[in-house]
Amino acid sequence: MTRFSRLVGVDLPLVQAPMAGVQASALAIAVCQAGGLGSLPCAMLTADQIRAEVAAIRAATSRPFNLNFFAHTPPAPDALRMAVWHSALLPYYRELGLDPAAIPSGPGRAPFTPEAADLLEELRPPVVSFHFGLPAADLLARVRATGARILASATTIEEALWLQARGVDAVIAQGIEAGGHRGIFLAHDLSTQSGTMALVSQLVDALQVPVIAAGGIADARTLRAALSLGAAAAQVGTAYMLCPEATTSSVHRAAIRSARSQHTVLTRLFSGGPARGIVNRLIRELGPMSALAPPFPLAASALAPLRSLAESLGRDDFSPLWCGQNPSGCAELPAAELTRALVAAL
Amino acid sequence: MTRFSRLVGVDLPLVQAPMAGVQASALAIAVCQAGGLGSLPCAMLTADQIRAEVAAIRAATSRPFNLNFFAHTPPAPDALRMAVWHSALLPYYRELGLDPAAIPSGPGRAPFTPEAADLLEELRPPVVSFHFGLPAADLLARVRATGARILASATTIEEALWLQARGVDAVIAQGIEAGGHRGIFLAHDLSTQSGTMALVSQLVDALQVPVIAAGGIADARTLRAALSLGAAAAQVGTAYMLCPEATTSSVHRAAIRSARSQHTVLTRLFSGGPARGIVNRLIRELGPMSALAPPFPLAASALAPLRSLAESLGRDDFSPLWCGQNPSGCAELPAAELTRALVAAL
Repeated sequence: MTRFSRLVGVDLPLVQAPMAGVQASALAIAVCQAGGLGSLPCAMLTADQIRAEVAAIRAATSRPFNLNFFAHTPPAPDALRMAVWHSALLPYYRELGLDPAAIPSGPGRAPFTPEAADLLEELRPPVVSFHFGLPAADLLARVRATGARILASATTIEEALWLQARGVDAVIAQGIEAGGHRGIFLAHDLSTQSGTMALVSQLVDALQVPVIAAGGIADARTLRAALSLGAAAAQVGTAYMLCPEATTSSVHRAAIRSARSQHTVLTRLFSGGPARGIVNRLIRELGPMSALAPPFPLAASALAPLRSLAESLGRDDFSPLWCGQNPSGCAELPAAELTRALVAAL
Repeated sequence: MTRFSRLVGVDLPLVQAPMAGVQASALAIAVCQAGGLGSLPCAMLTADQIRAEVAAIRAATSRPFNLNFFAHTPPAPDALRMAVWHSALLPYYRELGLDPAAIPSGPGRAPFTPEAADLLEELRPPVVSFHFGLPAADLLARVRATGARILASATTIEEALWLQARGVDAVIAQGIEAGGHRGIFLAHDLSTQSGTMALVSQLVDALQVPVIAAGGIADARTLRAALSLGAAAAQVGTAYMLCPEATTSSVHRAAIRSARSQHTVLTRLFSGGPARGIVNRLIRELGPMSALAPPFPLAASALAPLRSLAESLGRDDFSPLWCGQNPSGCAELPAAELTRALVAAL
């Protein structure tokens, strides 16, 4: 039994990274059945969708699983910044023949609300993980009271100590290599973001709680290296994106399989928050960190119609092609098989 | 005998990173004597200084050592860009009471010239390493003909394959965590720069020649992790900077010892090329990647008088405070002792 096994009750020191938009319960189930900690990303699901996915997980396995939520504070509405963003996208709406009067402007990603705490009290998942900090203290106390183990992402030593001080059971050290959204929540300056090697090593020294290494871990060798750094487990995302159980779109799969996956960037275009993905047309034309996009998560909604239409034409021009800096572990294998390969060298 | 031991003839899978400006032969000697590969940075030394340092190394140890050179192509002179840079520094010259008419404008860092090849034919060092690519083919052939093992830095898979195709004996995989100058030479876009975990792992897969991991490796645990990734050895720089054998300035030592070393950035202010260092006044006021600085290595000379005077007043405002993203291994210990600690977990 490793420290991580004792903490969350799984056999392997492996967390399948929650990846909103590219997976639901099927991937989580496969990883749970193989002995890892499967995760369900909840930030883009309604309460009823979460209920249905959790029911599917529980129907398929009795092993522990993780529900992931975003803990951001939604920004104040800002009509000017939304107008700037919409006008930046206007030429694309015109090019694709979409009606600019119908640009949607919903929030894009749900924060952690009292209703989410109600849901967790109802569902009682074994593990809950948070990205972008933690919910307000009263909500966090309610999650804690359900008995769930609580994990949360840190991108700096300061964030990790902040999380530990608030009672998380383990800290996910998200190195700069990681695909998808940076969990950054105390700092704003991306120059504070550290490589996995440096971050994990320093968090292991700085924390009493276990550290879960994330970023660039994609095969047996990198997983073993992460454990050598003193991590209790590793969180693996990108490697699972080509698995049949993932819901990764066909344009996204094609981009990952191509040489283009060698060049990922941090971009705020797709949500407003910095996230790592493969360079595509929107990034090339607006610049990855363009100030035109409104704050997280407000950028997402206006892109949805562009993305949807372009993808139907086989084009990834407006799609977030999330991918980490080590796509070498991506394989079109069942997730259980990939999981076994990841732990083969332990 | 490890693959690296066979290649360069040292006992330990450890290269002491050449660090121009903060060390000379004393640090290299101590690491060689402890069984690692000590390195002498030559890019800021004259031929006679290199001769003297090599003589000192050979007088102290019969073990293999490494001479490091920069292989950049000097930029064409550009009076306008130099004038822009000088005018950006003018307020600082005035503030410190220095004569702006006397701003020096030498090249700052020597490229690898035919005279350098002459010198290597004379000195016949066991190992030569290059940063910023490789010298022209004819010069490289002359270095090769001396019998030296040749190492060179890569920051991307593309650069690593380019180096291997030109016959280097090993590739130093410089992850984003590394302190000092990025070895980047084919790409220009810093978003191509990858964390050590992801870069080393992918270079080990892509190359036939051995890979030396660099960036974030600062103690026994990170060294062991680097070898777990399949690296034949690790290159360690920052950890040695507080050793008594290093010539690190007192303001630089103080910055490394302070909490400020937790925040390093890539900056082009000190030479024109991107390099990782601790944030100081110049970086805060001009911005780390300011376009005001001319191309590498032309930015350096004009800063020298500012730096020199400020340091004499105990201020690091204009000093390049090179430091990697993992300063946790820095210790005021003799370099031999630090070397033994680095390999303690192997």
